[in-house]
Amino acid sequence: MTQPTETMDTHVLSRTAAHLAERYAGIFSPETVERYVFESYATLSRTARVRTYLAATAGHFADDRLRALAQSQGKIDKPVAQVLFVCVHNIGRSQIAAALLAHHAGNGVEVRSAGSLPGAEVHPLVVEVLAERGIDLTGAFPKPLTDDVVRAADYVITMGCGDACPVSPGKRYLDWGIADPSQETLEGVREIVEAIDTRVQALWDQIRN
Amino acid sequence: MTQPTETMDTHVLSRTAAHLAERYAGIFSPETVERYVFESYATLSRTARVRTYLAATAGHFADDRLRALAQSQGKIDKPVAQVLFVCVHNIGRSQIAAALLAHHAGNGVEVRSAGSLPGAEVHPLVVEVLAERGIDLTGAFPKPLTDDVVRAADYVITMGCGDACPVSPGKRYLDWGIADPSQETLEGVREIVEAIDTRVQALWDQIRN
Repeated sequence: MTQPTETMDTHVLSRTAAHLAERYAGIFSPETVERYVFESYATLSRTARVRTYLAATAGHFADDRLRALAQSQGKIDKPVAQVLFVCVHNIGRSQIAAALLAHHAGNGVEVRSAGSLPGAEVHPLVVEVLAERGIDLTGAFPKPLTDDVVRAADYVITMGCGDACPVSPGKRYLDWGIADPSQETLEGVREIVEAIDTRVQALWDQIRN
Repeated sequence: MTQPTETMDTHVLSRTAAHLAERYAGIFSPETVERYVFESYATLSRTARVRTYLAATAGHFADDRLRALAQSQGKIDKPVAQVLFVCVHNIGRSQIAAALLAHHAGNGVEVRSAGSLPGAEVHPLVVEVLAERGIDLTGAFPKPLTDDVVRAADYVITMGCGDACPVSPGKRYLDWGIADPSQETLEGVREIVEAIDTRVQALWDQIRN
């Protein structure tokens, strides 16, 4: 039991909520923002392995969810396509696809990823293989699939999450058959990243045309 | 992929949100209530096995979370002690303890339960053994541990969830060493229920004195 950390986190979360309430003033009430920050923390806290920066991570997660919600409600512009990648644990396939699409498309799309059952941390070999391509995943963390990010998405790409994956009207759905990298060797992960990259580049071609 | 069901669920959830917005008028904005309903659905949707009544279940979950939040903020009275039981999957130990305390204490306490990694459904043998005692668990469902129910609690009793269990100031914490019933026979589950019942009765004595 880590009471001091939790108590300190509460202060960080309250400051984050106040800060985000300013950012989203006129869009969401301080009440909504505060709920997002604290529930994002509670959600990540249930599964995250590394707890040192959990309050900061929860702040980023809450910010992204609020942005997605505001976009879905037309309160913030969506100048580019919104793409959501979903897999089971958000530690492998969906993290790889999100990182590669962001890498290729730059500001041409807005990319998110999530998992139906988020894992404890991004798979270390995935971080390593993407680093070989000059892509930094050190700040990435497994996130549960939430209502807000589904709402914001124009494209939802699922990989292996079956019935737990969301289906709602007005979006384009793609289901990609990609192997799970979690039990793979470094070489196996490299092959999976390559397979995902081929599909990601085709998707990016489709989006921009 | 079950698109028709999901689309129908959206209508049910919208009606539920409107209904709860009336119930919590003056306490929470319709925006907050709507977010609770849809995020409760998204959360349960990630893990629930039975999906037929998921929208209705999500409505109950959202209602209970809003009530807990309002109580924690002093916007709804807490005339009796609020007790939260937490285990890993919220399919065995915490469900048993919550059901037994509600059975013994009636309206003398308000009882909730949650899991750090909620399972797919309440363990069938647990439902059976509690039915032998005249306690109906058929409407119970596994719920993730959320910020709101922790805030509302006066007593937090944890069973086997380790670091994922919450610690925050101003509450009484108890950690009970109770075996996990998930791999037990009917007789084993009966013994676990008996062991939990002894502790629950002692807790109820402590709360009311």
